Amino acid sequence: MPTDEVSPTTIAMLIYPDFTMLDLIGPHQVLTGVPGVAVDLVAKTAEPVISDSQVAVIPTKTFADCRPTYDVLVVPGTRNTHRMVEDAETLAFLRSVSADARYVTSVCTGSLILAAAGLLTGYRATSHWAFRRFLKAYGALPEDGRIVVDRNRITGGGVTAGIDFGLHLAATLVGEDAAKVRQLVMEYDPDPPYTVGTPDRADAGTRIRAEQRLAPLVAAMAAAAERTVTSEGADHATN
Amino acid sequence: MPTDEVSPTTIAMLIYPDFTMLDLIGPHQVLTGVPGVAVDLVAKTAEPVISDSQVAVIPTKTFADCRPTYDVLVVPGTRNTHRMVEDAETLAFLRSVSADARYVTSVCTGSLILAAAGLLTGYRATSHWAFRRFLKAYGALPEDGRIVVDRNRITGGGVTAGIDFGLHLAATLVGEDAAKVRQLVMEYDPDPPYTVGTPDRADAGTRIRAEQRLAPLVAAMAAAAERTVTSEGADHATN
Repeated sequence: MPTDEVSPTTIAMLIYPDFTMLDLIGPHQVLTGVPGVAVDLVAKTAEPVISDSQVAVIPTKTFADCRPTYDVLVVPGTRNTHRMVEDAETLAFLRSVSADARYVTSVCTGSLILAAAGLLTGYRATSHWAFRRFLKAYGALPEDGRIVVDRNRITGGGVTAGIDFGLHLAATLVGEDAAKVRQLVMEYDPDPPYTVGTPDRADAGTRIRAEQRLAPLVAAMAAAAERTVTSEGADHATN
Repeated sequence: MPTDEVSPTTIAMLIYPDFTMLDLIGPHQVLTGVPGVAVDLVAKTAEPVISDSQVAVIPTKTFADCRPTYDVLVVPGTRNTHRMVEDAETLAFLRSVSADARYVTSVCTGSLILAAAGLLTGYRATSHWAFRRFLKAYGALPEDGRIVVDRNRITGGGVTAGIDFGLHLAATLVGEDAAKVRQLVMEYDPDPPYTVGTPDRADAGTRIRAEQRLAPLVAAMAAAAERTVTSEGADHATN
């Protein structure tokens, strides 16, 4: 199938330690199955990268040897967002790729990493429900939503939103017909067992238990956001 | 988080060349986030395994060094089902793990591999919509459905069904409360962009294009199923 045509649409998907595997693989499975799209998994080094779920993935490109430009940048989220928002080398790489990209995008807390790189300043954006509010500390305009599009920024909600995001992106890049075929080939006719997929749809018990489970990560993220705010005046894009 | 308690529920997820990444990662992301569950990615050898979408994944165990028994076996699907149903070494491994497993399960065309191993004979089962009918050639009873449960066999539909399947399995193993928390943490409130997730919901154009796209794989699978039927009398479990 023609995934390597003369001028494919090129997509860089960032991978880094503790990234959330399904944040990546949702859109990756969608986009790699679309004719005319070429996807690189780009990491700092060529070493295997261990996801949050302990899957070791081998990058296909490094920051140093990847294409000079990409049409699309995709940043997945992580339980360690609080670390990634302070990873100067990664933030610099994201700024560099974004300079020439047609679309700058994310799934889950990937939007916080983009925002920390200064790439969502003044843009409406979404993120995982438990972390969305922190976008504000990095200059973005948090918005509830599974997919939020503001000019050429496309951000997806938490984890599983990556599939909806991927199909939306596929339609944007290669058209609705190809996206529909992809949705059918992937048999995407979801049937969640419970009605608890967002905090306002979940029962109180489920919501409280989920919040308790995420509390240490939310606290770490709050501390990172606080550090950004207290260093105000400094350009956090170069911090 | 307590994923390594004294007696975790152990899950073996098979990986092999050209497996469909999202078939694996849907349930893997669900199950690795559930307390008290330990998941191994088991392959023939310790070498990286390349998925259908060209992601290189490093196995955590091999056929030779994995646990002597597992509570659950999960087999993801592949575009190369027609090859896997004739891979004697893999089929023998699946029979061996299944002998002591509490649940024998699959996503997508993984059910055809289980069936070829003789593990779904007389069981109702589902598979990817384009391949479901071939289950019959291997002694299983094909059934339309996103998740089909027959005794201790749990089979999921195509690709994205793995998330619904994973949550169902989580509820079965550790209870509904934990599965609900997992669904909320993963923000699983899907919003497919189109109503084309199954052949009978899709418009004719999308259905025809998807069928055309899958036609070479369906033809290869038909040929493999034909070989099974013509070798009747032989025990295809040892074929």
